[in-house]
Amino acid sequence: MPHSSSRPAFDRRAVAKSLSRCANATVAEVLAASTAVAAAGGNARRIGFTGAPGAGKSTLISQLVRHRAGQAERLGVLAIDPTSPFSGGAILGDRVRMDNMVQDDRVFIRSFASRSAHDGLTDNVADLLDVMDIHGFDEVILETVGVGQTEYVVRIMVDTLVLILTPESGDQIQAMKAGLMETADIYVINKADRPNARQAANDVRAVLAQTSAPTDWKPEVIETSTQRADSIEQLSDAIDRHQRWFATRQDQASVARKRRAHQLAEIVRRQMHRLIADNAANWLDRPLAAAYSELVRQLQGHS
Amino acid sequence: MPHSSSRPAFDRRAVAKSLSRCANATVAEVLAASTAVAAAGGNARRIGFTGAPGAGKSTLISQLVRHRAGQAERLGVLAIDPTSPFSGGAILGDRVRMDNMVQDDRVFIRSFASRSAHDGLTDNVADLLDVMDIHGFDEVILETVGVGQTEYVVRIMVDTLVLILTPESGDQIQAMKAGLMETADIYVINKADRPNARQAANDVRAVLAQTSAPTDWKPEVIETSTQRADSIEQLSDAIDRHQRWFATRQDQASVARKRRAHQLAEIVRRQMHRLIADNAANWLDRPLAAAYSELVRQLQGHS
Repeated sequence: MPHSSSRPAFDRRAVAKSLSRCANATVAEVLAASTAVAAAGGNARRIGFTGAPGAGKSTLISQLVRHRAGQAERLGVLAIDPTSPFSGGAILGDRVRMDNMVQDDRVFIRSFASRSAHDGLTDNVADLLDVMDIHGFDEVILETVGVGQTEYVVRIMVDTLVLILTPESGDQIQAMKAGLMETADIYVINKADRPNARQAANDVRAVLAQTSAPTDWKPEVIETSTQRADSIEQLSDAIDRHQRWFATRQDQASVARKRRAHQLAEIVRRQMHRLIADNAANWLDRPLAAAYSELVRQLQGHS
Repeated sequence: MPHSSSRPAFDRRAVAKSLSRCANATVAEVLAASTAVAAAGGNARRIGFTGAPGAGKSTLISQLVRHRAGQAERLGVLAIDPTSPFSGGAILGDRVRMDNMVQDDRVFIRSFASRSAHDGLTDNVADLLDVMDIHGFDEVILETVGVGQTEYVVRIMVDTLVLILTPESGDQIQAMKAGLMETADIYVINKADRPNARQAANDVRAVLAQTSAPTDWKPEVIETSTQRADSIEQLSDAIDRHQRWFATRQDQASVARKRRAHQLAEIVRRQMHRLIADNAANWLDRPLAAAYSELVRQLQGHS
């Protein structure tokens, strides 16, 4: 049997199993596994997409993934879906469609229900991304649903952050204007065939022109429509441009440290909320100072 | 000097000083003060307002405060402003206007710069609200700026949550539909003189009709315009209706416990982020399990 020069395709089942194990791990297990994670190294390109529900993220990402599959031997998509009794069905529907739209041996797609119901995010994104690194993915796309603040976490964990807006995103553009949103690297006005798309794009450009960027990357604004293949290509090219900038102009050690700090904070927070929810022996009813001591004591016990 | 039957007006300077002290307190100081807080009791009605920048919150709240000042001997307004080098000026402008619009001995207005820049919220809202209780306020209005997730914190800390939308709030209404937003008690469509206001109100009603409410309070949807005094009165009446419902139908002990748990979590989080930012001796560079132990050890030291 001839050997191919490219790496063998990833083991789809093994990846799925690792992700499931990670998603269900206790804090003690995550901490115990972390040495192996650090040893594995790994450095998938990380591209985050975030936007309001209904912004057309899934369809756009499906098209983008098909376009980018040629560039990566192993391309992963992790999608965090809000946990909602009301919308669960519709969002799952989207996801099934994404799986059908992208059938490619090089592509792995997995969705997760968000574990913290209030922001549509999961509190273990950092751990899940680690798993993808361990399995040697070249590129990972992280899709999250949110308006406004969700992108804060995503911002830290990804190299390239794409914010997907639509002509109906008036509130979010106001929030940008007020400095309430993290700076994205690429702003997409999706559904650009609708009226007011050009206006929304110009509004975003105007806000960006008045905002002093935190780095020397100049954020790009791209109008996309799933009807226009060239707009998908433009988006993909912009991502490549930003990836090159990120790889050469950002201090990788400082990025890694920031991500580690965030991961640690999430782990402590997770454990803290579990302890508070348990509240064994009703220690929450004690005065605040005593409750603080007890909480921290219990955090120590669970390391 | 004749004694008035009503309580003397509050000491404006003392309130301002207490709030400033609280805003600058270390975690150790907050914990040390907490016994006094618990002893003081206090139970101001707490009404939270949240909405995107530009939704007209400050003007609406000013009018509402003038309307409600007659009902409360001591009415406080705490406004949390996003900390933003870009928008700082404009938002401060609003605030000065609110102070001018409401000149009443019974009303105390104070704004705070948010301390966690990424969500326009401050991480010590619970402590600030405690201060208002200590000073015997009857009613406190908490104003926060946000799109989407900000209301999570506010939801826990207030009795009545009012979400201010506008005809341009398409993304937020989509987020409601997806179950991504906390349930408010009252939804305001402000700027109701604009086109599409009725449509936005109907969209919100349609979402609410399909959402199973977490309690037996039926959320109200009110169209307001600062041009129409009767709409301010309608809003105020809706708040009163919800306050009566809250006082009689909610388990106050369970509400208090939830708030205490949240306050404790915020205090731990605050201390954790300070320790991470300090990162003395670079303990963050150690393997995750070791960093966790060190972080928790340092948390203990600062109780």
